[in-house]
Amino acid sequence: MGSVTEKGPQSLGAAVSMILGDTARGVMRFVQVDPDTCVMEGTIDGLSPGAHGLFIHELGDVSRGCASCGEVFDSRGQSGGKKAGDLGLVTATEEGRAKYRLNTSRIKIWNVIGRSVVIHTAEERVACGIIARSSGLFENDKRICAC
Amino acid sequence: MGSVTEKGPQSLGAAVSMILGDTARGVMRFVQVDPDTCVMEGTIDGLSPGAHGLFIHELGDVSRGCASCGEVFDSRGQSGGKKAGDLGLVTATEEGRAKYRLNTSRIKIWNVIGRSVVIHTAEERVACGIIARSSGLFENDKRICAC
Ligand SMILES: [Zn+2]
Ligand SMILES: [Zn+2]
Repeated sequence: MGSVTEKGPQSLGAAVSMILGDTARGVMRFVQVDPDTCVMEGTIDGLSPGAHGLFIHELGDVSRGCASCGEVFDSRGQSGGKKAGDLGLVTATEEGRAKYRLNTSRIKIWNVIGRSVVIHTAEERVACGIIARSSGLFENDKRICAC
Repeated sequence: MGSVTEKGPQSLGAAVSMILGDTARGVMRFVQVDPDTCVMEGTIDGLSPGAHGLFIHELGDVSRGCASCGEVFDSRGQSGGKKAGDLGLVTATEEGRAKYRLNTSRIKIWNVIGRSVVIHTAEERVACGIIARSSGLFENDKRICAC
Protein backbone atom coordinates (compact mmCIF):
# COMPACT_ATOMS: atom_id res chain seq x y z
CA MET A 1 0.00 0.00 0.00
CA GLY A 2 2.74 2.43 0.95
CA SER A 3 4.21 2.63 -2.48
CA VAL A 4 1.05 3.12 -4.49
CA THR A 5 1.36 6.83 -4.96
CA GLU A 6 5.07 6.66 -5.73
CA LYS A 7 4.33 4.32 -8.60
CA GLY A 8 1.20 6.20 -9.61
CA PRO A 9 1.95 6.96 -13.24
CA GLN A 10 2.44 3.30 -14.05
CA SER A 11 -0.70 2.32 -12.17
CA LEU A 12 -3.13 4.79 -13.73
CA GLY A 13 -5.81 2.91 -15.57
CA ALA A 14 -9.37 2.45 -16.62
CA ALA A 15 -12.15 0.03 -15.81
CA VAL A 16 -15.69 -0.76 -16.85
CA SER A 17 -18.59 -2.47 -15.10
CA MET A 18 -21.64 -3.82 -16.90
CA ILE A 19 -24.34 -3.58 -14.25
CA LEU A 20 -27.24 -6.01 -14.32
CA GLY A 21 -30.23 -6.76 -12.14
CA ASP A 22 -33.70 -8.22 -12.48
CA THR A 23 -34.91 -5.03 -14.13
CA ALA A 24 -31.89 -2.70 -13.99
CA ARG A 25 -29.11 -2.45 -16.53
CA GLY A 26 -26.28 0.01 -16.96
CA VAL A 27 -22.63 0.73 -17.51
CA MET A 28 -20.18 2.41 -15.15
CA ARG A 29 -16.75 3.59 -16.25
CA PHE A 30 -13.77 4.36 -14.02
CA VAL A 31 -10.66 6.34 -14.89
CA GLN A 32 -7.85 7.01 -12.44
CA VAL A 33 -6.92 10.45 -13.73
CA ASP A 34 -4.15 11.05 -11.21
CA PRO A 35 -2.83 9.10 -8.21
CA ASP A 36 -5.47 10.65 -5.96
CA THR A 37 -8.51 10.96 -8.19
CA CYS A 38 -10.74 8.28 -9.61
CA VAL A 39 -13.50 9.50 -11.91
CA MET A 40 -16.60 7.32 -12.01
CA GLU A 41 -19.35 7.90 -14.49
CA GLY A 42 -22.35 5.91 -15.60
CA THR A 43 -26.00 5.56 -16.45
CA ILE A 44 -28.33 2.93 -15.07
CA ASP A 45 -31.80 2.24 -16.44
CA GLY A 46 -34.66 0.20 -15.07
CA LEU A 47 -34.39 1.33 -11.44
CA SER A 48 -37.36 2.15 -9.26
CA PRO A 49 -37.75 5.95 -9.08
CA GLY A 50 -35.90 7.65 -6.21
CA ALA A 51 -32.64 7.23 -4.34
CA HIS A 52 -30.45 4.11 -4.32
CA GLY A 53 -27.12 3.50 -2.64
CA LEU A 54 -24.08 2.86 -4.80
CA PHE A 55 -21.38 0.69 -3.26
CA ILE A 56 -18.19 -1.11 -4.17
CA HIS A 57 -18.35 -4.61 -2.70
CA GLU A 58 -15.29 -6.71 -1.84
CA LEU A 59 -15.79 -9.50 -4.34
CA GLY A 60 -16.60 -9.67 -8.04
CA ASP A 61 -18.10 -13.11 -7.63
CA VAL A 62 -21.50 -13.05 -9.36
CA SER A 63 -21.86 -16.83 -9.42
CA ARG A 64 -24.93 -16.41 -7.17
CA GLY A 65 -25.83 -12.99 -8.54
CA CYS A 66 -25.31 -9.96 -6.32
CA ALA A 67 -25.57 -12.18 -3.22
CA SER A 68 -22.04 -13.55 -3.70
CA CYS A 69 -20.35 -10.14 -3.98
CA GLY A 70 -19.42 -10.09 -0.29
CA GLU A 71 -19.53 -7.08 2.00
CA VAL A 72 -18.94 -3.42 1.27
CA PHE A 73 -15.30 -2.86 0.34
CA ASP A 74 -13.12 -1.01 2.79
CA SER A 75 -9.46 -0.14 2.34
CA ARG A 76 -7.21 -1.44 5.07
CA GLY A 77 -6.07 1.44 7.20
CA GLN A 78 -9.18 3.49 6.56
CA SER A 79 -9.77 5.26 9.87
CA GLY A 80 -13.40 4.88 10.96
CA GLY A 81 -16.40 6.59 9.46
CA LYS A 82 -17.91 5.67 6.12
CA LYS A 83 -16.41 2.71 4.33
CA ALA A 84 -14.32 3.48 1.24
CA GLY A 85 -16.81 1.57 -0.91
CA ASP A 86 -19.79 3.67 0.18
CA LEU A 87 -20.10 6.02 -2.76
CA GLY A 88 -23.33 7.80 -1.94
CA LEU A 89 -26.63 7.91 -3.74
CA VAL A 90 -27.86 7.64 -7.28
CA THR A 91 -31.32 9.04 -7.89
CA ALA A 92 -33.51 7.55 -10.57
CA THR A 93 -36.04 9.66 -12.45
CA GLU A 94 -39.69 8.69 -12.86
CA GLU A 95 -38.53 6.84 -15.97
CA GLY A 96 -36.10 4.79 -13.89
CA ARG A 97 -32.91 6.34 -15.23
CA ALA A 98 -30.07 7.37 -12.92
CA LYS A 99 -26.93 9.18 -14.01
CA TYR A 100 -23.92 9.10 -11.75
CA ARG A 101 -20.69 11.06 -11.82
CA LEU A 102 -18.14 11.27 -9.04
CA ASN A 103 -14.55 12.46 -8.68
CA THR A 104 -13.29 10.64 -5.65
CA SER A 105 -10.18 10.04 -3.61
CA ARG A 106 -12.00 7.33 -1.60
CA ILE A 107 -11.05 4.56 -3.97
CA LYS A 108 -8.10 3.90 -6.27
CA ILE A 109 -8.77 1.94 -9.41
CA TRP A 110 -6.04 -0.60 -8.61
CA ASN A 111 -7.84 -1.47 -5.37
CA VAL A 112 -11.25 -2.08 -6.93
CA ILE A 113 -10.45 -3.99 -10.13
CA GLY A 114 -12.01 -7.46 -9.86
CA ARG A 115 -14.49 -6.31 -7.21
CA SER A 116 -18.07 -5.20 -7.95
CA VAL A 117 -20.42 -2.26 -8.13
CA VAL A 118 -23.67 -2.97 -6.25
CA ILE A 119 -26.83 -0.83 -6.34
CA HIS A 120 -28.89 -1.06 -3.15
CA THR A 121 -32.28 -0.15 -1.92
CA ALA A 122 -32.76 -0.20 1.84
CA GLU A 123 -33.94 -3.82 1.55
CA GLU A 124 -31.93 -5.42 -1.18
CA ARG A 125 -29.18 -5.52 -3.75
CA VAL A 126 -30.98 -4.63 -6.96
CA ALA A 127 -28.15 -4.80 -9.48
CA CYS A 128 -24.42 -5.47 -9.65
CA GLY A 129 -21.48 -5.78 -12.02
CA ILE A 130 -17.85 -6.89 -11.92
CA ILE A 131 -15.28 -4.07 -12.20
CA ALA A 132 -13.14 -5.16 -15.15
CA ARG A 133 -9.98 -3.77 -16.69
CA SER A 134 -10.59 -1.75 -19.83
CA SER A 135 -8.25 -0.04 -22.21
CA GLY A 136 -8.03 3.60 -21.27
CA LEU A 137 -6.39 6.83 -22.14
CA PHE A 138 -3.98 6.56 -19.26
CA GLU A 139 -3.13 2.92 -19.49
CA ASN A 140 0.35 3.26 -20.94
CA ASP A 141 1.59 -0.18 -20.15
CA LYS A 142 -1.64 -2.13 -20.07
CA ARG A 143 -1.51 -2.99 -16.41
CA ILE A 144 -3.45 -1.60 -13.49
CA CYS A 145 -1.50 -3.07 -10.67
CA ALA A 146 2.20 -2.41 -10.50
CA CYS A 147 2.95 -5.30 -8.13
CA MET B 1 6.81 -6.69 -9.90
CA GLY B 2 10.03 -7.47 -8.08
CA SER B 3 8.44 -7.73 -4.69
CA VAL B 4 5.56 -10.04 -5.57
CA THR B 5 7.09 -13.21 -4.22
CA GLU B 6 8.42 -11.54 -1.07
CA LYS B 7 4.91 -10.49 -0.17
CA GLY B 8 3.41 -13.75 -1.38
CA PRO B 9 1.42 -14.82 1.68
CA GLN B 10 -0.55 -11.61 1.74
CA SER B 11 -1.24 -11.82 -1.99
CA LEU B 12 -2.52 -15.39 -2.16
CA GLY B 13 -6.12 -15.39 -3.26
CA ALA B 14 -8.94 -16.84 -5.26
CA ALA B 15 -10.90 -15.86 -8.31
CA VAL B 16 -13.86 -17.02 -10.35
CA SER B 17 -14.90 -16.51 -13.96
CA MET B 18 -18.41 -17.14 -15.25
CA ILE B 19 -17.79 -18.01 -18.90
CA LEU B 20 -20.48 -17.25 -21.45
CA GLY B 21 -20.81 -17.51 -25.22
CA ASP B 22 -23.54 -17.93 -27.81
CA THR B 23 -23.88 -21.59 -26.89
CA ALA B 24 -21.14 -22.17 -24.32
CA ARG B 25 -21.39 -21.65 -20.59
CA GLY B 26 -19.12 -22.58 -17.73
CA VAL B 27 -17.27 -21.65 -14.58
CA MET B 28 -13.53 -21.45 -14.02
CA ARG B 29 -11.97 -21.14 -10.57
CA PHE B 30 -8.48 -19.95 -9.73
CA VAL B 31 -6.57 -20.41 -6.48
CA GLN B 32 -3.03 -19.17 -5.92
CA VAL B 33 -1.90 -22.00 -3.67
CA ASP B 34 1.63 -20.68 -3.21
CA PRO B 35 3.56 -17.74 -4.64
CA ASP B 36 4.53 -19.79 -7.70
CA THR B 37 1.49 -21.95 -8.36
CA CYS B 38 -1.93 -20.96 -9.60
CA VAL B 39 -4.44 -23.80 -9.81
CA MET B 40 -7.14 -23.36 -12.45
CA GLU B 41 -10.08 -25.66 -12.66
CA GLY B 42 -13.37 -25.56 -14.52
CA THR B 43 -16.03 -27.13 -16.67
CA ILE B 44 -17.46 -25.63 -19.84
CA ASP B 45 -20.58 -26.93 -21.56
CA GLY B 46 -22.03 -26.19 -24.96
CA LEU B 47 -18.77 -26.22 -26.92
CA SER B 48 -18.38 -27.82 -30.33
CA PRO B 49 -16.70 -31.23 -29.90
CA GLY B 50 -12.89 -31.19 -30.09
CA ALA B 51 -10.03 -28.94 -29.09
CA HIS B 52 -10.31 -25.26 -28.19
CA GLY B 53 -7.65 -22.84 -27.03
CA LEU B 54 -7.91 -21.38 -23.56
CA PHE B 55 -6.39 -17.93 -23.08
CA ILE B 56 -6.20 -15.12 -20.60
CA HIS B 57 -6.84 -11.85 -22.41
CA GLU B 58 -5.59 -8.44 -21.24
CA LEU B 59 -8.95 -6.83 -20.55
CA GLY B 60 -12.10 -7.87 -18.74
CA ASP B 61 -14.16 -5.49 -20.83
CA VAL B 62 -17.15 -7.47 -22.16
CA SER B 63 -19.12 -4.38 -23.18
CA ARG B 64 -18.89 -5.66 -26.78
CA GLY B 65 -18.78 -9.31 -25.79
CA CYS B 66 -15.52 -11.21 -26.20
CA ALA B 67 -14.47 -8.75 -28.92
CA SER B 68 -13.59 -6.06 -26.36
CA CYS B 69 -11.33 -8.29 -24.22
CA GLY B 70 -8.17 -7.08 -25.96
CA GLU B 71 -5.19 -9.22 -26.91
CA VAL B 72 -3.75 -12.28 -25.20
CA PHE B 73 -2.26 -11.28 -21.84
CA ASP B 74 1.49 -11.34 -21.50
CA SER B 75 3.46 -10.56 -18.37
CA ARG B 76 6.02 -7.85 -18.78
CA GLY B 77 9.48 -9.31 -18.80
CA GLN B 78 8.33 -12.66 -20.19
CA SER B 79 11.21 -13.73 -22.40
CA GLY B 80 9.92 -14.79 -25.81
CA GLY B 81 8.04 -17.96 -26.63
CA LYS B 82 4.44 -18.57 -25.71
CA LYS B 83 2.59 -15.72 -24.08
CA ALA B 84 1.80 -16.11 -20.38
CA GLY B 85 -1.92 -16.07 -21.17
CA ASP B 86 -1.72 -19.00 -23.58
CA LEU B 87 -2.91 -21.83 -21.36
CA GLY B 88 -3.20 -24.65 -23.85
CA LEU B 89 -6.15 -26.66 -25.02
CA VAL B 90 -9.47 -27.75 -23.60
CA THR B 91 -11.06 -30.67 -25.41
CA ALA B 92 -14.82 -31.00 -25.53
CA THR B 93 -16.51 -34.37 -25.67
CA GLU B 94 -19.15 -35.32 -28.23
CA GLU B 95 -21.63 -33.86 -25.73
CA GLY B 96 -19.81 -30.53 -25.81
CA ARG B 97 -18.40 -30.69 -22.30
CA ALA B 98 -14.79 -29.76 -21.55
CA LYS B 99 -13.10 -30.13 -18.19
CA TYR B 100 -9.94 -28.19 -17.51
CA ARG B 101 -7.41 -28.40 -14.73
CA LEU B 102 -3.98 -26.80 -14.69
CA ASN B 103 -1.32 -26.11 -12.06
CA THR B 104 0.68 -23.31 -13.55
CA SER B 105 3.50 -20.92 -12.78
CA ARG B 106 2.75 -18.98 -16.00
CA ILE B 107 0.26 -16.68 -14.34
CA LYS B 108 -0.17 -15.25 -10.84
CA ILE B 109 -3.68 -14.56 -9.67
CA TRP B 110 -2.86 -10.94 -8.79
CA ASN B 111 -1.85 -10.31 -12.41
CA VAL B 112 -5.03 -11.69 -13.97
CA ILE B 113 -7.78 -10.37 -11.70
CA GLY B 114 -10.00 -8.04 -13.76
CA ARG B 115 -8.85 -9.59 -17.03
CA SER B 116 -10.73 -12.36 -18.90
CA VAL B 117 -10.75 -16.01 -19.83
CA VAL B 118 -11.41 -16.48 -23.55
CA ILE B 119 -12.14 -19.77 -25.32
CA HIS B 120 -11.04 -19.82 -28.94
CA THR B 121 -11.51 -21.89 -32.01
CA ALA B 122 -9.07 -21.25 -34.85
CA GLU B 123 -11.55 -18.74 -36.28
CA GLU B 124 -13.21 -17.02 -33.39
CA ARG B 125 -13.68 -16.24 -29.73
CA VAL B 126 -16.51 -18.54 -28.71
CA ALA B 127 -16.92 -17.64 -25.05
CA CYS B 128 -15.41 -15.41 -22.39
CA GLY B 129 -15.72 -14.31 -18.78
CA ILE B 130 -14.27 -11.67 -16.48
CA ILE B 131 -11.83 -12.97 -13.83
CA ALA B 132 -13.35 -11.70 -10.58
CA ARG B 133 -12.17 -11.77 -6.99
CA SER B 134 -13.81 -14.49 -4.92
CA SER B 135 -13.53 -15.40 -1.30
CA GLY B 136 -11.09 -18.23 -0.98
CA LEU B 137 -9.39 -20.51 1.45
CA PHE B 138 -6.16 -18.60 1.24
CA GLU B 139 -7.52 -15.10 1.21
CA ASN B 140 -6.60 -14.12 4.74
CA ASP B 141 -6.94 -10.43 4.41
CA LYS B 142 -9.47 -10.17 1.64
CA ARG B 143 -7.18 -8.59 -0.89
CA ILE B 144 -5.51 -10.04 -3.92
CA CYS B 145 -3.09 -7.31 -4.73
CA ALA B 146 -0.67 -6.20 -2.07
CA CYS B 147 0.08 -2.84 -3.66
ZN1 LIG C 1 -23.90 -3.64 -0.05
ZN1 LIG D 1 -7.39 -14.62 -27.92
